[in-house]
Amino acid sequence: MGRKRFDEMNCGVAQALEALGDWWTLLIVRDAFFGARRFGEFERSLGIAKNILSARLKRLVDHGVFERVAAGVVGDRYEYHLTPKGEALLPVLIALREWSDDWIYGRGHEPMILRERATGRRLPRLRVKNRDGVELKVADIKPTPGPGASAESRALLARRDASNA
Amino acid sequence: MGRKRFDEMNCGVAQALEALGDWWTLLIVRDAFFGARRFGEFERSLGIAKNILSARLKRLVDHGVFERVAAGVVGDRYEYHLTPKGEALLPVLIALREWSDDWIYGRGHEPMILRERATGRRLPRLRVKNRDGVELKVADIKPTPGPGASAESRALLARRDASNA
Repeated sequence: MGRKRFDEMNCGVAQALEALGDWWTLLIVRDAFFGARRFGEFERSLGIAKNILSARLKRLVDHGVFERVAAGVVGDRYEYHLTPKGEALLPVLIALREWSDDWIYGRGHEPMILRERATGRRLPRLRVKNRDGVELKVADIKPTPGPGASAESRALLARRDASNA
Repeated sequence: MGRKRFDEMNCGVAQALEALGDWWTLLIVRDAFFGARRFGEFERSLGIAKNILSARLKRLVDHGVFERVAAGVVGDRYEYHLTPKGEALLPVLIALREWSDDWIYGRGHEPMILRERATGRRLPRLRVKNRDGVELKVADIKPTPGPGASAESRALLARRDASNA
């Protein structure tokens, strides 16, 4: 069976992965969150080959995550600025960081701690909650077809419902 | 310059990416959230070659995201069950899904909607907030060295502080 392309999948997770391209891409976005704007800054931080970085940045510009902005004539001619679509990746990056703080480094060994700039207070953990603020686990959540569900997705969710009944 | 390995980076995001391996891996975890447990279920859902799926599942077991459990003698001999470490990836997957609901499909066109099983209510959006519940944007957040910061990370954060001052 051939590999399904992510962009043919009727799934938000797969579509996000398709737009982002690969893991490197998220590290480029991470560096932008920390203030990197120029090609050379991303290159130094990531230790990535110029041609690969160049292709990744182009992909991110094509997908509207960065915009390329003229930046004068000294040094790099362009800067890469996160768009609102790019800034909206903040919860994805924070969720990945918290997962590895908990499960890889362990609390008390985090390489970096995120704080509110205005107060210096540590950010509270990102939690999946219901509308009353109660934390939800995987078993508490039920996937249902949305307005954009394909016939295939609807059938799959119906089968799962039947097997969980 | 050689490619830095993710597992040599003093960064939670990079470590999470290293443990997860590649994009396929997150789709395997997604399917497990939806109830898939057997090799054949993952294979049908993903349309992925057996040898690739097998390698990804092995990686996830090695990293403690799944445990492989004997499942009798009919059909697949093993099931793959998410561990607590695997279930803790829930915010990562929800953040990716919400990002693509907002920025790729658009609200009103979501392929899937997640609801609280007990009440049928839609899950509220995952937001990065401060301790008072106020939503934070990228510019409101300051990365600071944690107890596990390397000398290199400390120097990098100090340089960023200086250039933001």
